[in-house]
Amino acid sequence: MSIEQERIVIESLSPQVDGGRYDVKAVVGDRIEVGADIWKDGHELLKAAVLWRKLDAAEQVPRAGPSQTDLARSGWREERMSTCYEANDRWSASFAVDELGPHAYTVVAWTDVFGSWRSELEKKAAAGQGVGSELREGLAIVDAAFGRARGRDREALGRFVRAIREAPDEHRAVAAALDDRLAALMDRHDARADLRRYDHEIPIWVDRERARYGSWYEIFPRSQGTVAGRSATFREAEARLPEIAAMGFDVLYLTPIHPIGRAHRKGKNGSEHAEPGEPGSPWAIGGPEGGHEAVHPELGTIGDFDHFRTAAARLGLEIALDFAINCSPDHPWVREHPAWFSHRPDGTIKYAENPPKKYQDIYPINFETPQRDGLYQALLGVLRFWIGHGVKIFRVDNPHTKPVSFWKWLIDSVHRDHPEVLFLAEAFTRPKRMHRLAKVGFTQSYTYFTWRNARSELEEYSRELFLTDVRLFLRPNFFANTPDILHRVLQEGGRPAFLQRLVLAATLSPSYGIYSGFELCENRALGPGSEEYLDSEKYQYKIWDWHRAGNIIAEVARINRIRREHRALQTGSGLRVLESTNPEIIAYAKATADLADVLVVAVNLDPFQVQEGTIRVPAELYGGAEQGEYAVTDLLAGERYRWRGERNYVRLDPHKLPAHVLEVERPGSVVVDAAPRR
Amino acid sequence: MSIEQERIVIESLSPQVDGGRYDVKAVVGDRIEVGADIWKDGHELLKAAVLWRKLDAAEQVPRAGPSQTDLARSGWREERMSTCYEANDRWSASFAVDELGPHAYTVVAWTDVFGSWRSELEKKAAAGQGVGSELREGLAIVDAAFGRARGRDREALGRFVRAIREAPDEHRAVAAALDDRLAALMDRHDARADLRRYDHEIPIWVDRERARYGSWYEIFPRSQGTVAGRSATFREAEARLPEIAAMGFDVLYLTPIHPIGRAHRKGKNGSEHAEPGEPGSPWAIGGPEGGHEAVHPELGTIGDFDHFRTAAARLGLEIALDFAINCSPDHPWVREHPAWFSHRPDGTIKYAENPPKKYQDIYPINFETPQRDGLYQALLGVLRFWIGHGVKIFRVDNPHTKPVSFWKWLIDSVHRDHPEVLFLAEAFTRPKRMHRLAKVGFTQSYTYFTWRNARSELEEYSRELFLTDVRLFLRPNFFANTPDILHRVLQEGGRPAFLQRLVLAATLSPSYGIYSGFELCENRALGPGSEEYLDSEKYQYKIWDWHRAGNIIAEVARINRIRREHRALQTGSGLRVLESTNPEIIAYAKATADLADVLVVAVNLDPFQVQEGTIRVPAELYGGAEQGEYAVTDLLAGERYRWRGERNYVRLDPHKLPAHVLEVERPGSVVVDAAPRR
Repeated sequence: MSIEQERIVIESLSPQVDGGRYDVKAVVGDRIEVGADIWKDGHELLKAAVLWRKLDAAEQVPRAGPSQTDLARSGWREERMSTCYEANDRWSASFAVDELGPHAYTVVAWTDVFGSWRSELEKKAAAGQGVGSELREGLAIVDAAFGRARGRDREALGRFVRAIREAPDEHRAVAAALDDRLAALMDRHDARADLRRYDHEIPIWVDRERARYGSWYEIFPRSQGTVAGRSATFREAEARLPEIAAMGFDVLYLTPIHPIGRAHRKGKNGSEHAEPGEPGSPWAIGGPEGGHEAVHPELGTIGDFDHFRTAAARLGLEIALDFAINCSPDHPWVREHPAWFSHRPDGTIKYAENPPKKYQDIYPINFETPQRDGLYQALLGVLRFWIGHGVKIFRVDNPHTKPVSFWKWLIDSVHRDHPEVLFLAEAFTRPKRMHRLAKVGFTQSYTYFTWRNARSELEEYSRELFLTDVRLFLRPNFFANTPDILHRVLQEGGRPAFLQRLVLAATLSPSYGIYSGFELCENRALGPGSEEYLDSEKYQYKIWDWHRAGNIIAEVARINRIRREHRALQTGSGLRVLESTNPEIIAYAKATADLADVLVVAVNLDPFQVQEGTIRVPAELYGGAEQGEYAVTDLLAGERYRWRGERNYVRLDPHKLPAHVLEVERPGSVVVDAAPRR
Repeated sequence: MSIEQERIVIESLSPQVDGGRYDVKAVVGDRIEVGADIWKDGHELLKAAVLWRKLDAAEQVPRAGPSQTDLARSGWREERMSTCYEANDRWSASFAVDELGPHAYTVVAWTDVFGSWRSELEKKAAAGQGVGSELREGLAIVDAAFGRARGRDREALGRFVRAIREAPDEHRAVAAALDDRLAALMDRHDARADLRRYDHEIPIWVDRERARYGSWYEIFPRSQGTVAGRSATFREAEARLPEIAAMGFDVLYLTPIHPIGRAHRKGKNGSEHAEPGEPGSPWAIGGPEGGHEAVHPELGTIGDFDHFRTAAARLGLEIALDFAINCSPDHPWVREHPAWFSHRPDGTIKYAENPPKKYQDIYPINFETPQRDGLYQALLGVLRFWIGHGVKIFRVDNPHTKPVSFWKWLIDSVHRDHPEVLFLAEAFTRPKRMHRLAKVGFTQSYTYFTWRNARSELEEYSRELFLTDVRLFLRPNFFANTPDILHRVLQEGGRPAFLQRLVLAATLSPSYGIYSGFELCENRALGPGSEEYLDSEKYQYKIWDWHRAGNIIAEVARINRIRREHRALQTGSGLRVLESTNPEIIAYAKATADLADVLVVAVNLDPFQVQEGTIRVPAELYGGAEQGEYAVTDLLAGERYRWRGERNYVRLDPHKLPAHVLEVERPGSVVVDAAPRR
């Protein structure tokens, strides 16, 4: 046959990212809900299945679909798909992933020869039409399955062949042909006529749970001491760990811990020249003591780091390290690998610039170096070094100024041996670049959350992140502040604004973080219009009163405990934006897919005035009738309210608590006059 | 270099259908607006261009992008793309297509080395920084271009090299470096560093205008005579052509004109057995007189058909033929090619069925035949035969019951020699099948229009067809009725309903049609709940009084004239759904992209009651200020109204005219107190 003919169409698989070009992200324990459009011209019935498997660690995800032999050989598992008339040719099935690392799935479909025949027979018999010819057709189909079967199934099929062939009348032959046990046997020995496979495999990357859900706390290790005018050591910083753990954080992210360059060191508040004794920016990495694989002597030794990491782990705190690809002029690589840097016509190395701004304390890497292989391996070596010291989370500085193809290579290379390693992209860049970095492998990404403050902005942005296909590849980490971003809302709104932003970050996004000082409501900016902190830790030694008046430590601890106790806050996709009559009050629900855990959050976005209004919770969320009564408990304030129906009143005083985090109680316990729905 | 590194990203090209897997549809004269996300990590500037070309007729659209040599060799044309800060890495350009047949485009981008350098120099010079090192870098860039250039450009570049190198001070060197004439020279001799191409070519199929825009009229040729009890001949039917042309139609679609089978011929109103003298369904194709390439002897000879087609063409009517792939039991193919049909176990051929319904007068083709090549060639031969007789439009019966891959092969095969041929798919099937048929090559498709009658249904469906990406591959043809579909709205609503549906079909969709009798408001159904016509022409000889009372011939002629005079009605994408205060009044505007032609349509969807309300026309459409005054002329009724501002009152009496088709007059002529905006 010279002309190829395809009759079964399989397309529009979900989930997928750019047609399977990039991984769909999942975490261990997730159930992957697969959908596909599947149909064949004409009226025959089809059957379909999802094929999926764990890939070997070193295996590249193949782009072309598996051949028939591959299917048998390489451990594909199968889940049958189903559809219904209303689904309009959309089929679905699901499977659970329970191993770290790369997986793939695809879809197969075939003509349901027996089922199609059976369906026609049933209709004709019901219409009283003669079906002698049809029975002869069916016998041939069953007989072929009999030929393929072995053992007891073969015997059973043989009995059906005889029952149909030797039936005393058409009526009894039809009854035998329509027997459900025959349908089950035929399904087991289906020859899968016209078997067609989707022409790609869709890759899935499975991370550990921390990839999706975690509460982060960022510190400058050198500021964790009690002695002014010098760096704290890791040994001293260890003393801070219990109170950080007590706030309920999961990840402790350390700004760079490496030696800092001397040349062109920045001074207090970023001034161009450091005074003697000023420590410089930790991101100006590298000095005579070493580069990216060294520990700053003022912090201690690599042994001290190991001790610190182990102490943190005992308290349930996982360490995340900063990975910043730039070098101070004193970094060993500047001397050892001059070709990794860009040179001016006069032979000097180019420092970082964003004209007319100059960053003379930092040399960026020249990724166009002819010695690219060595550079790549050295950078991979840095990560491997720290992985060897137990670090499994890297917060990557400014990834958008390096080639995305480098990140893909680097993350793939790490993941081949260490699928448990997580990467957070500090991708404060334009949306398409942020998305691509997520697609090529970054586990999580910083977002525009700090700059989304109005209700409509928060609603629109949350919908985009958690309810569109963006959720398949980009996992946001909502940092409420960073050493570079003290938003005007915090500067002007004070403590109520810190509480608002804390609740928003911690309940909208399953991963969120604060940079230390947030819990102290530190809000002094460098100057008007600046998002820089005054006297920033980036450029100076600093000690803090970690219990100073006006802090929100108790609230941070409470919200983190709520996050641990409520699965609804541990995923993003259970978000529902709720109606609210007051534009200053944002309201949303977070719910698990089974609605076993439902929280309703309402936040007053005005840090100055009391705001009140009515919010609408759809009846399905409280599991009652539209006018049913139920109880909600404010997990922040501890108060319990009796609510009735979908619309209820809220009043939020920013000077007390600007937010409700309400647990919706199940109908069995509280519904008074409404029929429970489940 | 063993590790590949990509820095320029080109993605998300538009327009495209499924990543370039299927053609984007266009017509001659269209301007293709191309968009792409283009960016590079870091801060360097880029340049980008669209490459496009007409493909050779026999050329398959290549999936992989062109190589550098291909670009030079195969006649690619180039349009530079542009972007701006607000476009967020989205670049755009456009090009016009003016030839029939296959085209392709792709996108290239490269680092703007000179521009990046120039931009930095400008900023640094403006900040008063020393730029000696920068000038030396720039000289090297300009000098390299000087080396590539020839002739006068080389001389001019040489002068700039000297002007920069020999400038008496940095200030004058910078001035020479920033000279716009140098930038233009550098652009012409740009080495296109890091040139990157999008990895696919996006195919575009360019049709003639009739593919998008046309008014169709469907007839049973045998019913076009004046003598009862027998078929009209083509010669007799010719007499009808002037009045069909006078109604302003462009396409005259004939139901099948071939010999009709005798065996199991259907009788009046689809009864199982025909009485002697009954003609049978024209879709039961084939008799002793021949099959798909024969003319029914009762209609005349092939010469009579040629005469009819020529007469129609002289009146501006293009003939569309029905292409129905099925055979009566008397079709020559049944005898000559038994393997093309499915056989029962008793050796007889299977007739068409949709159990328990049986269509004994039709044998469907078995596309699983082992003689597939011969079958395909025979079907292609049928089309070539009629193309040889001047037919360039085929209305394809029930395409969704044949393999989509067959249609792709067939349409591609025809288009290779005859890109002017158009195919209308009678794809009354589920949405995904309808879409795929459009994607594989059908020029136009029947739609669900007849079943969309409520305002919200019409708005939603029109948005989907004309304002989403569906418009790139599927061109709807809004038939207001067909021989199989007399909708309840017409049965019950009478003349007002016929007028409503006429205006909706003819103004929403650039292609629309009616099946003859519609203009007579023929609305007698076979029975309650049936969409079949009573005494349907499908099964009997019929003569009509083509001027009977209550007809809407004048209105049909008027709407078709309006369609010819107004470009706004000749494309779909200029649709804007308008606000209307009355749920029974649908309102929308159709406008050309340049707003030179703007029509506002308001239709009362209630065939029984007068409806009134206010509709809102955005100020941009009348080219005035929000409170400006302007005139609108009802092209149907001929009345002129003075409107003021965006919101104006309409009142529509279904028993007079249930619709306004309002031409919005340009502000220059009518605006009284508003400042013209252009």
